Amino acid sequence: MSNSAPASPPASDALPTTQRAAVLHAARDVRIQERPVPDPAADEVLVRVTSVGVCGSDVHFFHDGHLGDWSVDEPLVLGHESGGVIVAVGADVDPARIGERVSIEPQHPSHASAETLRGEYNLDPDMQFYAVPGTDGAFQQYVTIQSHFAFSIPDSVSDEAAALMEPLSVAIATCRKAGIQPGSRVLIAGAGPIGIVTAQVARAFGATDIIVSDLAEARRETALSFGATRVVDPAAGGSADLDRSVDAFIDASGAAPAVLGGIRSVRPGGRVVLVGMGIDELALPISYIQNLELTITGVFRYANTWPAAIALVAAGRVDLDRMVTGRFGLDRVVDALESTSDPTTIKSIVTPNS
Amino acid sequence: MSNSAPASPPASDALPTTQRAAVLHAARDVRIQERPVPDPAADEVLVRVTSVGVCGSDVHFFHDGHLGDWSVDEPLVLGHESGGVIVAVGADVDPARIGERVSIEPQHPSHASAETLRGEYNLDPDMQFYAVPGTDGAFQQYVTIQSHFAFSIPDSVSDEAAALMEPLSVAIATCRKAGIQPGSRVLIAGAGPIGIVTAQVARAFGATDIIVSDLAEARRETALSFGATRVVDPAAGGSADLDRSVDAFIDASGAAPAVLGGIRSVRPGGRVVLVGMGIDELALPISYIQNLELTITGVFRYANTWPAAIALVAAGRVDLDRMVTGRFGLDRVVDALESTSDPTTIKSIVTPNS
Amino acid sequence: MSNSAPASPPASDALPTTQRAAVLHAARDVRIQERPVPDPAADEVLVRVTSVGVCGSDVHFFHDGHLGDWSVDEPLVLGHESGGVIVAVGADVDPARIGERVSIEPQHPSHASAETLRGEYNLDPDMQFYAVPGTDGAFQQYVTIQSHFAFSIPDSVSDEAAALMEPLSVAIATCRKAGIQPGSRVLIAGAGPIGIVTAQVARAFGATDIIVSDLAEARRETALSFGATRVVDPAAGGSADLDRSVDAFIDASGAAPAVLGGIRSVRPGGRVVLVGMGIDELALPISYIQNLELTITGVFRYANTWPAAIALVAAGRVDLDRMVTGRFGLDRVVDALESTSDPTTIKSIVTPNS
Amino acid sequence: MSNSAPASPPASDALPTTQRAAVLHAARDVRIQERPVPDPAADEVLVRVTSVGVCGSDVHFFHDGHLGDWSVDEPLVLGHESGGVIVAVGADVDPARIGERVSIEPQHPSHASAETLRGEYNLDPDMQFYAVPGTDGAFQQYVTIQSHFAFSIPDSVSDEAAALMEPLSVAIATCRKAGIQPGSRVLIAGAGPIGIVTAQVARAFGATDIIVSDLAEARRETALSFGATRVVDPAAGGSADLDRSVDAFIDASGAAPAVLGGIRSVRPGGRVVLVGMGIDELALPISYIQNLELTITGVFRYANTWPAAIALVAAGRVDLDRMVTGRFGLDRVVDALESTSDPTTIKSIVTPNS
Repeated sequence: MSNSAPASPPASDALPTTQRAAVLHAARDVRIQERPVPDPAADEVLVRVTSVGVCGSDVHFFHDGHLGDWSVDEPLVLGHESGGVIVAVGADVDPARIGERVSIEPQHPSHASAETLRGEYNLDPDMQFYAVPGTDGAFQQYVTIQSHFAFSIPDSVSDEAAALMEPLSVAIATCRKAGIQPGSRVLIAGAGPIGIVTAQVARAFGATDIIVSDLAEARRETALSFGATRVVDPAAGGSADLDRSVDAFIDASGAAPAVLGGIRSVRPGGRVVLVGMGIDELALPISYIQNLELTITGVFRYANTWPAAIALVAAGRVDLDRMVTGRFGLDRVVDALESTSDPTTIKSIVTPNS
Repeated sequence: MSNSAPASPPASDALPTTQRAAVLHAARDVRIQERPVPDPAADEVLVRVTSVGVCGSDVHFFHDGHLGDWSVDEPLVLGHESGGVIVAVGADVDPARIGERVSIEPQHPSHASAETLRGEYNLDPDMQFYAVPGTDGAFQQYVTIQSHFAFSIPDSVSDEAAALMEPLSVAIATCRKAGIQPGSRVLIAGAGPIGIVTAQVARAFGATDIIVSDLAEARRETALSFGATRVVDPAAGGSADLDRSVDAFIDASGAAPAVLGGIRSVRPGGRVVLVGMGIDELALPISYIQNLELTITGVFRYANTWPAAIALVAAGRVDLDRMVTGRFGLDRVVDALESTSDPTTIKSIVTPNS
Repeated sequence: MSNSAPASPPASDALPTTQRAAVLHAARDVRIQERPVPDPAADEVLVRVTSVGVCGSDVHFFHDGHLGDWSVDEPLVLGHESGGVIVAVGADVDPARIGERVSIEPQHPSHASAETLRGEYNLDPDMQFYAVPGTDGAFQQYVTIQSHFAFSIPDSVSDEAAALMEPLSVAIATCRKAGIQPGSRVLIAGAGPIGIVTAQVARAFGATDIIVSDLAEARRETALSFGATRVVDPAAGGSADLDRSVDAFIDASGAAPAVLGGIRSVRPGGRVVLVGMGIDELALPISYIQNLELTITGVFRYANTWPAAIALVAAGRVDLDRMVTGRFGLDRVVDALESTSDPTTIKSIVTPNS
Repeated sequence: MSNSAPASPPASDALPTTQRAAVLHAARDVRIQERPVPDPAADEVLVRVTSVGVCGSDVHFFHDGHLGDWSVDEPLVLGHESGGVIVAVGADVDPARIGERVSIEPQHPSHASAETLRGEYNLDPDMQFYAVPGTDGAFQQYVTIQSHFAFSIPDSVSDEAAALMEPLSVAIATCRKAGIQPGSRVLIAGAGPIGIVTAQVARAFGATDIIVSDLAEARRETALSFGATRVVDPAAGGSADLDRSVDAFIDASGAAPAVLGGIRSVRPGGRVVLVGMGIDELALPISYIQNLELTITGVFRYANTWPAAIALVAAGRVDLDRMVTGRFGLDRVVDALESTSDPTTIKSIVTPNS
């Protein structure tokens, strides 16, 4: 994640000194540019990027030039779901890592904050995170990351799955917060990529009733093929019959009506976890929440998820490969970003080095 | 809590067969009536009521004839903060309990619900609770309660403190949900009786920064005398400087602006617990809550609090006696109910047998 | 669980007044006797027993006449893993339950103890439990149980699986205490019935590395067929290479060397759960446990497991049917008890009404 | 904690280049030596040491030349309970910190281990810790520490209390693991310094019954003056009457009989936390622990305790100053180490710069 230009030749002989990057200059203005290959800091590795998933937040930045409080004032490389191969290492990293296939946890928290020290490093206020203004992401040929956030993946895990450990990590963080346990009954609103991977993860956590709601029939069908035990159409009554019956409601839709309906589906003492983005403000039924002692929270990225993510994929509990519906070279980053508006798209992958 | 009239003479010779009760027939229509002394069921005890605290919910029922979804359609005896002396026992209860001074946990959950079995009996859907339509409360001379919910109190604990174990229990349940720990920094909105007892309990949980906000200066002064380490006036900027700094925010005000301001005071990963009643619906800052992974929940009564409540009072960690600001005989129940509108009132006590 | 003889005709016309029961009078002295069919108490149901699993504790009582502190001083009916059909109900139970196929949670805790109230009813000191001296078990044609501990099972779940929800519940309680999560690595010592079902449950909790150790090759093979990802032979070095690497060690062997080796396999901060019976006292490496902050605990039955158990079996996550290796009529209870010494036996089933 | 000699002049003009240190060369061989003042690394501060507490582990190293698996093969500076004043800062630290009075958390974990990332940095396998072979401690005039582990203390907190935040942290970690809550009943074995500070912390966590056992009457008296609600003499029956009644048992004695008796005092489902050092192996009652589902664990230092420790002392909930029973200049380190054998000693303090 070091942004300094290489002051000396990279550690590995074969490395180029420049690379191609897809750089967002303003809303809808992406340019392929030649940039220096960064030099890894002492505790970092340099990764040749193989695959990068396209996330909804990338699409937001691309279309709007901003997301929430963040604004693209300086040129920014998008992409934070990535994997690749280690091609160089910093001074403090074992050179034996060169050649390893890795999945990248795209964050760099301070090691000294109270949040990091208690294990919630995703909440560190001084976080640097791929593809958030101030830190470039992975829509480029080479990236740096702290060595311990480049997780080795086994041969049985594909390059694309390596990239998609990131949305899988969001789903793991979500299911942890939702308290999913063996035998749990869970309602998931939204059958987009996060809803789909969360359905799979809920199953891996032991949930036996996994109800997914989505307005689009195609997405409901997809959900069924990825572990949902039942799907419901909000336009046709939806989850109304679930009244106070699910252990947890997870919103992966970012749609206000879905959240309001979902809250009513939760049993006394149950949990509501909001992972879908896009709702700035919403009128919630406070006394209802109090009387049932519901717990409502949100998910902001993840901490300590990668080892579990890799283990679940390697063990075949979660299928990331089948979620990939499109592949795009670096020149076609814009096509990749625009592909997400197609309801049959689950995950589009950018391949910066293909 | 059995409502059956005594079919046989009560176990204790000296017991009368009838008693005086303050009965709410409709909004603002309280009548002192002669009623049979109930017979305890097999697992119940009969308690001669010594002291009963007046709660905000009693006042609501008195003024409006309803509270939330509950409506006073049949005559109802109010009062659920009570203590007294066991004067008779059911068939399965050790007669040696007769004569014991007790504090009453005023609920009767089903023993068979999933909620009760997992230790959350306050969330049992078939609950019978004192002074909620369907179950008479303690503004009468004698009440019944399951033996294990009549908790023995030591000589050092007063009758009035025995009654006030109930609001103390609300505060314990609240501080548990708020995750208060030694060294915690907590903001409490509202310096009414629940705010005051919660401030004391937060201290007993080890909180070292206890900030209480209230519009009324008199109440702020009271809070300082009960353990608040700092008080703030919402009208004068309030808790604005607490931005993202407290571990937990507890709303005991039921005031929408207090809740909205309080949420902004909580650190990343911190908790918001809503105990104050009266907000049906409130527009919450969803994306803010997500980004900071705040947890929001409510408190609905309590479970497994009485032993801790009694221990805290007996050990001098919480002072309930000093919270009593007025005492009223059964004939003056209406005065007691109306006394709560006086800002200098903290707790009014009704003494049905005085 | 009421032991009273029926004072009045049972609720259902077709019910007999007497039944056959296999009664243990002393070590190795089992007699088939005619006994009254019990009358369900008000909150109980009467169940015609279909299948009963044989547990190691039954075998202990049969061989020795005692188990730990319990001694068979009065005639005792063994068997506590049972399912059947409701044939009559007590006064407070909905008669519509008659005809339901159920799995029995064979315990009757007090509803009033501190343990029960906080959700740990398995630790209630006044527990009555099937097949423990003082309370008859299920090696008989009819048993009573509180209605809420007779759990309805779907058509897709077999009678034998209904009976084996009990050992499955032990495994669920064990995996909860072991903190098994998606991606966990767990070592299970002992591939007897509890080890086998625990391996399955660990998988259902998301464990991805499930290492099972057993001295018998046949049992190791069985473990592999039930979800173990690796098996080790303690006689051939066993789990020595696991040094400080598993998240949890579960002992289902009751063998001291297995426990001592298992402890060394656990990572810093990991957990040790002892479910296997038979070790009265064992010299543990205290300073080692302190330095790694290992947590050691045991499992005593279960609480709040049946809904999860039934859901896991109905969803196909746990296979109980394939664990059944022998079936015996009531006359052959002794054969059933003795069958467990055969290493190819996993679970023997007694069918009191066949 | 950097051991490199200063390659350049220290940041602050007034700093000397050499200092005096009490160096342990072998068992009972302590020499006062002139050593270079270390240069803080980029993320470190240099602290002029004001006060250092003497810990039992220092005494062990002094008397035996080893402790557990650690052996003093190279000269070692003891002392890990320390506070002082920041006199210089590394390149990445705000120079405004110079002049701050601080309490030192004497550990330097890797920021990259799984243990650190999940908030259990005390369990990091690559830990560097003051006064453990490989890392010098604080019985010297100047020490370095990472900036975030030098915690600012308010004026109201004394230098000696700053040093004793370390044993206070052990007690906080202990009470967390013991699950101490308001109303808890706890038995603490051993009224040495850790027992005494743990009794105070248990009170700060809300425990209302704090029973301390010790063979020495003087120590029992001390315990009473520091918050014990009752003391017992193990030689006179001790805690035998506590049978299965305390929520938690904390061993701060390191005495086998105390541990065995203490285990019997814990209620079903309760916890045993072993903090006292010195028991390598102990025969524990396994089936008893299983039947009561007791949880047994140990404490190895602490993580995330300093903010709470400072807050508790600043708020007057824990009194560290009164625990100081002796003060020694650097020349008298040996006297300080030997003072701990006197039963009237609670804490001896070394003052390297006096």
